[in-house]
Amino acid sequence: MDKLKKMESKKIMEAQESVHLADLHLPEDLRDLSYTQCRQLCCEIRTTLVNTVSKTGGHLASNLGVVELTMALHRCFHSPEDKIVWDVGHQSYTHKLLTGRLDRFPTLRQENGISGFPKPSESEHDAFVSGHSSTSISVACGMAASMRLNQQDHYAVAVIGDGAMTGGMVYEGLNNGGKVPDNLIVILNDNHMSISKNVGALAKYLASIRGKEGYVKTKWAVERTLDKTPVLGKPLAKVLKTSKDTLRNTLYHQSTLFDNLGFVYLGPVNGHNLEELEEVLQVAKSYHRPVLVHVNTVKGKGYMPAEKNPGEYHGISKFDVMTGNPEVSVDTCFSTVFGQELARLGREDQRICAITAAMKYGTGLQFFASECRDRFFDVGIAEQHAVTFAASLASMGHLPVFAVYSSFLQRAYDQLLHDVAISNLHVVLGIDRAGIVGEDGETHQGLFDVSLVSSIPNSTIYAPLCYEELRTCLKKALYEDKGLVCIRYPRGVDQSEPAFREPSLTLSHYRKGGRILLVTYGRIFNEMVRAQVALAAEGICCDMLRLTRIFPLLPQAVAAMQEYDQVIFFEEGVKTGGIASQVGDALLESGFRGRYSSVAVQGFVKQASVAGSLEHAGLSASKMSDYVKGAVHGHAT
Amino acid sequence: MDKLKKMESKKIMEAQESVHLADLHLPEDLRDLSYTQCRQLCCEIRTTLVNTVSKTGGHLASNLGVVELTMALHRCFHSPEDKIVWDVGHQSYTHKLLTGRLDRFPTLRQENGISGFPKPSESEHDAFVSGHSSTSISVACGMAASMRLNQQDHYAVAVIGDGAMTGGMVYEGLNNGGKVPDNLIVILNDNHMSISKNVGALAKYLASIRGKEGYVKTKWAVERTLDKTPVLGKPLAKVLKTSKDTLRNTLYHQSTLFDNLGFVYLGPVNGHNLEELEEVLQVAKSYHRPVLVHVNTVKGKGYMPAEKNPGEYHGISKFDVMTGNPEVSVDTCFSTVFGQELARLGREDQRICAITAAMKYGTGLQFFASECRDRFFDVGIAEQHAVTFAASLASMGHLPVFAVYSSFLQRAYDQLLHDVAISNLHVVLGIDRAGIVGEDGETHQGLFDVSLVSSIPNSTIYAPLCYEELRTCLKKALYEDKGLVCIRYPRGVDQSEPAFREPSLTLSHYRKGGRILLVTYGRIFNEMVRAQVALAAEGICCDMLRLTRIFPLLPQAVAAMQEYDQVIFFEEGVKTGGIASQVGDALLESGFRGRYSSVAVQGFVKQASVAGSLEHAGLSASKMSDYVKGAVHGHAT
Repeated sequence: MDKLKKMESKKIMEAQESVHLADLHLPEDLRDLSYTQCRQLCCEIRTTLVNTVSKTGGHLASNLGVVELTMALHRCFHSPEDKIVWDVGHQSYTHKLLTGRLDRFPTLRQENGISGFPKPSESEHDAFVSGHSSTSISVACGMAASMRLNQQDHYAVAVIGDGAMTGGMVYEGLNNGGKVPDNLIVILNDNHMSISKNVGALAKYLASIRGKEGYVKTKWAVERTLDKTPVLGKPLAKVLKTSKDTLRNTLYHQSTLFDNLGFVYLGPVNGHNLEELEEVLQVAKSYHRPVLVHVNTVKGKGYMPAEKNPGEYHGISKFDVMTGNPEVSVDTCFSTVFGQELARLGREDQRICAITAAMKYGTGLQFFASECRDRFFDVGIAEQHAVTFAASLASMGHLPVFAVYSSFLQRAYDQLLHDVAISNLHVVLGIDRAGIVGEDGETHQGLFDVSLVSSIPNSTIYAPLCYEELRTCLKKALYEDKGLVCIRYPRGVDQSEPAFREPSLTLSHYRKGGRILLVTYGRIFNEMVRAQVALAAEGICCDMLRLTRIFPLLPQAVAAMQEYDQVIFFEEGVKTGGIASQVGDALLESGFRGRYSSVAVQGFVKQASVAGSLEHAGLSASKMSDYVKGAVHGHAT
Repeated sequence: MDKLKKMESKKIMEAQESVHLADLHLPEDLRDLSYTQCRQLCCEIRTTLVNTVSKTGGHLASNLGVVELTMALHRCFHSPEDKIVWDVGHQSYTHKLLTGRLDRFPTLRQENGISGFPKPSESEHDAFVSGHSSTSISVACGMAASMRLNQQDHYAVAVIGDGAMTGGMVYEGLNNGGKVPDNLIVILNDNHMSISKNVGALAKYLASIRGKEGYVKTKWAVERTLDKTPVLGKPLAKVLKTSKDTLRNTLYHQSTLFDNLGFVYLGPVNGHNLEELEEVLQVAKSYHRPVLVHVNTVKGKGYMPAEKNPGEYHGISKFDVMTGNPEVSVDTCFSTVFGQELARLGREDQRICAITAAMKYGTGLQFFASECRDRFFDVGIAEQHAVTFAASLASMGHLPVFAVYSSFLQRAYDQLLHDVAISNLHVVLGIDRAGIVGEDGETHQGLFDVSLVSSIPNSTIYAPLCYEELRTCLKKALYEDKGLVCIRYPRGVDQSEPAFREPSLTLSHYRKGGRILLVTYGRIFNEMVRAQVALAAEGICCDMLRLTRIFPLLPQAVAAMQEYDQVIFFEEGVKTGGIASQVGDALLESGFRGRYSSVAVQGFVKQASVAGSLEHAGLSASKMSDYVKGAVHGHAT
């Protein structure tokens, strides 16, 4: 227990020398600092977090909550040999500051800047990519297994919030992690919150054990006494070791859910007390078998506006540091329009139920929740359950609507296919954050839902352009369509030009007498309108076709395209399995002999502004215009 | 507690009258039978199960294990008002026999016959479709919520095996089910097995509490005394009620994993003792809050060969009832070839790791498991964990191979995209049971994996024709390719003609000088070869192109097609997002002006023989030939 002794000496030393992040070689130097110096650094980190995020936007409350925890982790473990895996990853800002990325931190979430999530390509200390919830234990299991295979005595540490613990994948990880004596440590960062209020039986259970905080502290003394007991010769040492273990188990090893899954449970400890944190982490290391450390933290810790409103400061856009007020306040966006319309319909129709996977506010369902409380279900970060639960409600005659971010819907493909579609149950999805999302980058782009959903037989997809069309589609989906019906809409506000806001449920064909037809759906029609004007100014006359119902392909859409010499499809989504590709095939199979080409998103889209990403993908007005010019002259196909 | 009294009287009565399934109006009449009569019926059911499955093939061991449990459920609950939801569903044969399907039972798993899984379209007693694991609790949650919204005092009962409990979705269901006082009852059918030996921390935990069997029995007496205590006036009644609950909790409410998740835990009880089962189910009903009943059963119970080898009799083809020997024994199939080759490579390369999600034998990984024990991982029915665990191993420099059925891979789409592909980690998938699977029907078809995987950037897919090509592809995938690499192969044996077994890693072009090109990949190339011969005999000369690497599209494949006047693509997979559709688009975008059409699988494919399903899908030799004749004469496009 050299480590504990070292910590003792540090405590005694308590160097008063002032330190700054910029002067340190990180993370190595951290381990030589006194607790006073560490606390001083924590203050500097919090200031840096608040100042930076106030300028860049990003995740604030969750990061403020783990400042001490992150510091303790980097003092007790040796990254990159020891692997620290951040679940969801939006709480990794302090980790970034403590692993040498202070100078680049002002570029957070910007194009070519520091990612808001762990990224192995950014630093060797980012052990694994994350962005979606509940993966960290599985990742750490793999790393621990690898260390065992390679006979390395390092540690794999997963840091996971109580919100992420509601995702089923966590239990698959625990079930596998708990069965082998690997150096696997799970840190449960319990801030009593998911993105919004945490829900479910597990949250209740955590609340029931959370209150025990403090009991651990009194046990450290005993533990340390045990560790200081001198060892006399091998046989006696063994006896002592055994009795130590037994006593230790009596002290910490409470019978809990996690024990049942094969983990030693330690905690809960105060996640803002560095000494306590480091002690419990050292104990966790000493077990050499799976350990779960339960840490209580306060989301938003240290910045009053965030502490008071952790939900609002979970993910936030630019704000004023002094007041905490956002720079631009958005009242209406696609999410709120969807949520308000659903609430209005829900008041009138008792069959309507609304479901969210821990995104009540993000998806605008707060309106429904307050007006139709009984029929609102927040299932936690559990998209699989959400879809099957919706299917079950549908089988009982209800009208379930699941509002979910495109990227997170990826978790529930099998449930859509197996539980909804095979029985052709009537389930409506509001697919929010469809298309490019901007600063969150690769892990959050909503570019795959169209390919996914359209591979499912009997499904229907709408991509409304404006608020009014969104409302129209929702009513159609609920009252006229059957089976799985999806309405996808982007993050943010309706930027369509009023002249184009005539709602359609099928398609809108804008004829100007051109021989070239530009086709698209959703938000980037706004870009197309501008491109068309620019092209007309250059003497290239293009007609436009905008699809509202994008899947199944409308026969009249294919027929309309066949009138033209050249058809060009722009799609804010991946190419393979997307609508542009389906249209190309449909045109050829139906005997079209004109020219056809398409521009869709290639590969994974990195963090940037939405406008920047559209530009890179060739989907901005100017890029569309350039492309059409090239295609007309024959060098684009 | 009328029910209990009624049971008492039944016990006393113990009618000796002989009963037969065929004479009863089911399930209603069940509730009037004596235990003796019930036990007699159980014998008849077991005989029927063994005799029928010996002729049709199907799931045997799991069904033999739940005969008494199913009978107890139908005596204690009133289907269809009470909903019984069978997890995975392959254990629902007795349920089918007890709900009026005896006469149709010989058609089990045959075309137009009784499904091997619950199917609402087949009977009102089949509350929900199933086929994939771990969905039942989410389904029952939805039903219980619906009953609450509709103020109905019915019950939603999920019956789930200990194997299915290893799937994360179960915990999403428990977490949501445990938080509300619904009439939700989960029956944990603990046969100490998954499809093969159950694994993981949960299995250990269940083993630790399983041993307590019998303690429950002694408690029933107390319970029943409590329930017989007369109630005198309302206030006293309340006091009694409270003390009853307290005592009851002391008796059954043990602190366990399930209690922590908000469920009352009852059990374990002997799943082959009808009296015990019915008593515990009545107690479960009395709680009016979520209850988990732990039932111990013996997989294969009552048929010696199945009891001795439950793994082999889990899913079995036709067999001899007397000896238990299969009618046709298959030594070599695509799965075993894959498994043996992987084991051979694994012996030579310590980096190779093999992963299965509870399908060690089904995927042929038993060879690797016995030769490279340390590097073999059975993670339980946990495809999400399997993929992310594989990604993690890859990030540490190993060469992970996850062998998985196509249909079950659907569970892990997000993990493939988010954990493997974004970081371009090198993970190899053996996608087994790709294409039509036959008698298991809609829920198990392997028709979506190509659309799914090809929507993921940087992925590669091979579809080998024969064993040797499978081996070649596996080596290529491990040692030459990067990122996510998939090899898909069908269930069963290699039926290719030796003349076509020259392994390729790209494509094979068979030129006969025709102006028509037939294109396909995988197993149905065998059909195409026969179609081509038949067409030639009728004077229609067709060339053939067989793709081995199907994604990304090979430029030389598109170039080869452009040589022809007419190209026809046959695909054993869904149309949308499939290769035929991608090829159609690629051809048009590259300026192809010939005729193109494709035949792919439409909608969900019902149970039938593989040959029958291929015929219905238009993918048999004769249907291909008919289609080509029509297409040549212009009425197919």
